[in-house]
Amino acid sequence: MPATHAVQFHARPVFPKGFRCASRNCGLKPSAKDLALFVSDVDAAAAAVFTLSHFPGAPIVLGRETIKSGRLRAIVANSKVSNVATGQRGVEHARRMAQAAAAEIGSTPDRVLVSSTGVIGVALPIDIIERGIHGMTADLCTDPLVGAEGIMTTDRYAKALSVSVGAATITWVAKGSGMIEPNMATMLVYIFTDAAIDAPALDTMLRRAVDVSFNMLSVDSDTSTSDTCAILANGLAGAVDETAFADALRAGCIRMTEMLARDGEGATHLLRTTVTDAKNDGEARRVAKSLVNSPLIKTMVFGADPNVGRILMAVGKCVDCTIVAASTDASINGYPVVRQGARLDFDDAAVRAALAADIVDIEVSLGVGSARATAYGCDLTQGYIDENAAYYSS
Amino acid sequence: MPATHAVQFHARPVFPKGFRCASRNCGLKPSAKDLALFVSDVDAAAAAVFTLSHFPGAPIVLGRETIKSGRLRAIVANSKVSNVATGQRGVEHARRMAQAAAAEIGSTPDRVLVSSTGVIGVALPIDIIERGIHGMTADLCTDPLVGAEGIMTTDRYAKALSVSVGAATITWVAKGSGMIEPNMATMLVYIFTDAAIDAPALDTMLRRAVDVSFNMLSVDSDTSTSDTCAILANGLAGAVDETAFADALRAGCIRMTEMLARDGEGATHLLRTTVTDAKNDGEARRVAKSLVNSPLIKTMVFGADPNVGRILMAVGKCVDCTIVAASTDASINGYPVVRQGARLDFDDAAVRAALAADIVDIEVSLGVGSARATAYGCDLTQGYIDENAAYYSS
Repeated sequence: MPATHAVQFHARPVFPKGFRCASRNCGLKPSAKDLALFVSDVDAAAAAVFTLSHFPGAPIVLGRETIKSGRLRAIVANSKVSNVATGQRGVEHARRMAQAAAAEIGSTPDRVLVSSTGVIGVALPIDIIERGIHGMTADLCTDPLVGAEGIMTTDRYAKALSVSVGAATITWVAKGSGMIEPNMATMLVYIFTDAAIDAPALDTMLRRAVDVSFNMLSVDSDTSTSDTCAILANGLAGAVDETAFADALRAGCIRMTEMLARDGEGATHLLRTTVTDAKNDGEARRVAKSLVNSPLIKTMVFGADPNVGRILMAVGKCVDCTIVAASTDASINGYPVVRQGARLDFDDAAVRAALAADIVDIEVSLGVGSARATAYGCDLTQGYIDENAAYYSS
Repeated sequence: MPATHAVQFHARPVFPKGFRCASRNCGLKPSAKDLALFVSDVDAAAAAVFTLSHFPGAPIVLGRETIKSGRLRAIVANSKVSNVATGQRGVEHARRMAQAAAAEIGSTPDRVLVSSTGVIGVALPIDIIERGIHGMTADLCTDPLVGAEGIMTTDRYAKALSVSVGAATITWVAKGSGMIEPNMATMLVYIFTDAAIDAPALDTMLRRAVDVSFNMLSVDSDTSTSDTCAILANGLAGAVDETAFADALRAGCIRMTEMLARDGEGATHLLRTTVTDAKNDGEARRVAKSLVNSPLIKTMVFGADPNVGRILMAVGKCVDCTIVAASTDASINGYPVVRQGARLDFDDAAVRAALAADIVDIEVSLGVGSARATAYGCDLTQGYIDENAAYYSS
């Protein structure tokens, strides 16, 4: 189990001191919100990680440049059009989006991180977005869910989360249903804190947290061209214990990962796959991801069908990992189903019941070392097909 | 396009000289056929390749031992139960199956290759199978489709294919819907020829042919614990031109790969993804497989939805390959949709029409070298979910 239990998240998410947000419909979508603005009262130390795709969206190209300074004042994001595969004109559009937001909040474009999520290969309607950004400061409020509403695509609900660390607060606002949305993009995760932490420390802590959370999330094994995870620390709450902060940051990233996975397209279950006693971290991660990505495991969970041989299949196909059949055990929500590589003569009804739980934990002990990893995903259902067979057309 | 056009397959598959087969229901399934026997009149030179899974079925463990001699007389296969994850008893059951077949045909167990396909982790009902094998020689006939019927699981039709090479014939009998069936297993491909070729040459030619055909097939990225591809050459037609034989062998393996992909679970289209101008073979294969396995590409094909940005996504996520956005072009059934990394302003209706064809060819030119590879798969539909959410229970 991921160790998130020690951290108490707020019952309703709140912003840290000095952060506000606004969202609106600017006309990219017929009526739903399609534009969000997140602002700090003062410049914040910042760090970010982006997709590794060879076809990063224009906002990613610009964002990599912007984040070099380690300072951000705001984030502006639109949904519906991702500004990917749009060439040099796309980068100019992203710059204009940063300029419009900077003008609106009284800052400079190099302090504004831009995100776009939506269909690929369509020119960003930048004029509409510029008009939309104009006047947004009048709407700024302190409810992070309002900002979350502006970046939703197929998300079924707005996602935000917050936690206290000493006198400081950490708040997550996110969208996405895994590594990719049907609109080609995107997991967007913005993290805000009033703790005083410098950019290099933020960068290190962010990468460590992302490594065990968002990087272990997969709805469908596809990778977005626009994935972005950024953190802003404006320092208004002063210094905090960095170990406690790092722990809370990791726990919140894991919790948000679970929220994104549970809201995966068509998902009816959160699927967590934990591999223990692996030879090393890399192998633990590969086997955990093989399990969480396997269509046959995912459909087994959807159908609550105790076809547990599929667990051995998904482990067995990791041909470059150290797997010893005779030392491999597996359980579903704590119910043992495989011991020493052989299927146990279990009670079908009990395993069906375990698989019917909202959260399904598949744990595999490889018995060849001491490394451990958990991957996060969801089941595969008709809903995924329905959403993705006609996304562009709908 | 795969170069299979030069080879003329027979309108109706026939066996080479000296091969016969039989199939029947022995009681593993309620009424459908569940047992098949393929026999050569004389010992044949033989070669085989098996799954790389760490959890190979008992028949694979035995088969690796059997094939070492390079001689086979027969193949016996059952469907419904795969004899995987069944421990040492499973291997004993596989041996008894070989013994029963050897006794029936008047040979020895070390000349009999055994296959089992079906659910994992269930003991093989060996007594029923032994009784079923008894008397099968009386049913031996010369129609390869009869044998194919005995190894079907979720296949919608029996699959066989044959071609002439000089005075010799090559015949393929297969089952499967890709790398894995919902019953955990399996792609089974048996190739029979009356050409006189020794076992080492067969082994080399088989591996080369499988490398560009069955190893490039993926219905769902899952890998069976029981995949087997074996070839038997009984020599009754004498020597043949080995180059012509190798070409025909490769062409038939590719054609059978397409038949398996088109019959993938729930499939409504054959999807072929060809990558050209890649830096090297390995990268061409990885990108082709990334395309053919992408759930978003597969649902795009199912929905005939021209969301072609997904092609860039699936190429872009191959982070360890040499991809240059500005040199990447793509087409769908010959219709250009991406040039120099940007989506072309194409006619939606024309691309919809291209995607609606029974065979959808997605071709991506990477423009960074001269290597080429084709992968084979199918679309992802509600039918896949329906078949796999309740396989064990049904």
